[in-house]
Amino acid sequence: MLKSSISVRVRYAETDAMKFVYYGNYASYFEVARVELLRQHGMSYKALEDQGIWMPVRDLQIDYLLPALYDDELTVNVCVRSLPSTRMKFEYETYRGDVLLNRGTTTLVFVSSQSGRPTRCPEVLMQLLQPYFESEIME
Amino acid sequence: MLKSSISVRVRYAETDAMKFVYYGNYASYFEVARVELLRQHGMSYKALEDQGIWMPVRDLQIDYLLPALYDDELTVNVCVRSLPSTRMKFEYETYRGDVLLNRGTTTLVFVSSQSGRPTRCPEVLMQLLQPYFESEIME
Amino acid sequence: MLKSSISVRVRYAETDAMKFVYYGNYASYFEVARVELLRQHGMSYKALEDQGIWMPVRDLQIDYLLPALYDDELTVNVCVRSLPSTRMKFEYETYRGDVLLNRGTTTLVFVSSQSGRPTRCPEVLMQLLQPYFESEIME
Amino acid sequence: MLKSSISVRVRYAETDAMKFVYYGNYASYFEVARVELLRQHGMSYKALEDQGIWMPVRDLQIDYLLPALYDDELTVNVCVRSLPSTRMKFEYETYRGDVLLNRGTTTLVFVSSQSGRPTRCPEVLMQLLQPYFESEIME
Repeated sequence: MLKSSISVRVRYAETDAMKFVYYGNYASYFEVARVELLRQHGMSYKALEDQGIWMPVRDLQIDYLLPALYDDELTVNVCVRSLPSTRMKFEYETYRGDVLLNRGTTTLVFVSSQSGRPTRCPEVLMQLLQPYFESEIME
Repeated sequence: MLKSSISVRVRYAETDAMKFVYYGNYASYFEVARVELLRQHGMSYKALEDQGIWMPVRDLQIDYLLPALYDDELTVNVCVRSLPSTRMKFEYETYRGDVLLNRGTTTLVFVSSQSGRPTRCPEVLMQLLQPYFESEIME
Repeated sequence: MLKSSISVRVRYAETDAMKFVYYGNYASYFEVARVELLRQHGMSYKALEDQGIWMPVRDLQIDYLLPALYDDELTVNVCVRSLPSTRMKFEYETYRGDVLLNRGTTTLVFVSSQSGRPTRCPEVLMQLLQPYFESEIME
Repeated sequence: MLKSSISVRVRYAETDAMKFVYYGNYASYFEVARVELLRQHGMSYKALEDQGIWMPVRDLQIDYLLPALYDDELTVNVCVRSLPSTRMKFEYETYRGDVLLNRGTTTLVFVSSQSGRPTRCPEVLMQLLQPYFESEIME
């Protein structure tokens, strides 16, 4: 399993007239979380794009329990439970302190930026990630 | 059943470096669609807020099939299949011409803006919506 | 002189915790206004990009007089007072009814998307715009 | 003079189809910069709002020299050159490494959130800021 965690402070730009973070803006917090997870495991998403691989989002799902407010310092935990193939699934939890605010998932696919066609997880990324899933592979 | 449809043109601000609409921005297109559905059935969401009712989003789910691009004129179809109670569920489909780009759902809850507590769908909204679900009620 | 006008309804996504439209979001309303001005004069900005011309913004200036609120139907007037050369300057006024909310300007430059270098206003756009500035040229 | 500096990494959500940071999104980077400047000098903007003071933006001006790109780590320098009265002016410079990308200013006004009326800079903020402008006051 891959795990990581980021801290993000709510900007005024991200709030709405209820004084809550607008529900669509968590998509961007989740993006920061998964990009930092990749970076911490040796892979920059930007480098991946430079090598001709895009990772568009195939599906998004969020359960909102409590709103985040302006200036809150949020923690977004992110994890990947299975080795990617043609897809890579990320799970997220957003906390303020020890209060869970929401839970979500995204599935991303690997696409060749030249052809626009789906492709498998690039070898370079596979080799970086495999050690974290060894035990599962052995089972 | 309630049904409606809006047309929205993709702004440059809403695209990302893949030249696609950023995946989180559909949340805002869906918002426009459900607010216009309510307006077309006699209820302004702003008026609802002025009466002390907020409708925060409880969950969001989107399946992305194809990306929307800059300047695309999109059609977002929205429908409500059952009479709201403490919740109101909206279903969405985003089209470019006759090509389906994505499908999503949101569940919104009714909350008193004073107490922050969940409440039932306000009577005024119930009375506006009930005629559209008559047949289901009779069954 | 070129003139145009668009109507835009404020989305919840665009408001902030003061219940105002977030000050940075007018950049996107101004974008819609200038793109529609070009379209109404025969030039799609998307087509321009497809021909290898980008128009990044060189400067932005806004004076905010009064805030716009959720669900407001705004009118953004846009005008171009002089024929573009290597730059094209747009002026904007945002109204709610007959109340002026803000005034702004942007200067855009023409850039080759291949080389990233500044270029002159493309001939095809010049020919479309010239008739609107004839009198000034004759003077 | 007050000075501060923040570091911000460009999110995919903030890029546009030119692969640049969308020009309106710097408004939100500038917001982060000025809020952190206040925090570092002992004043949380959130606390100010809780005391009934809003600081809406009165004017914004940006000169864009070079674009910021996805995943860039930007430095935004912010300074305040004169003691606030009914207004507070902030100046910004955005850098990638030692390359200046853009320069901007915002003027914010103090408003009572109850009455919506302009007010003077609150005493508590004045007292925190005054030491940094002592020499100017003596002149």
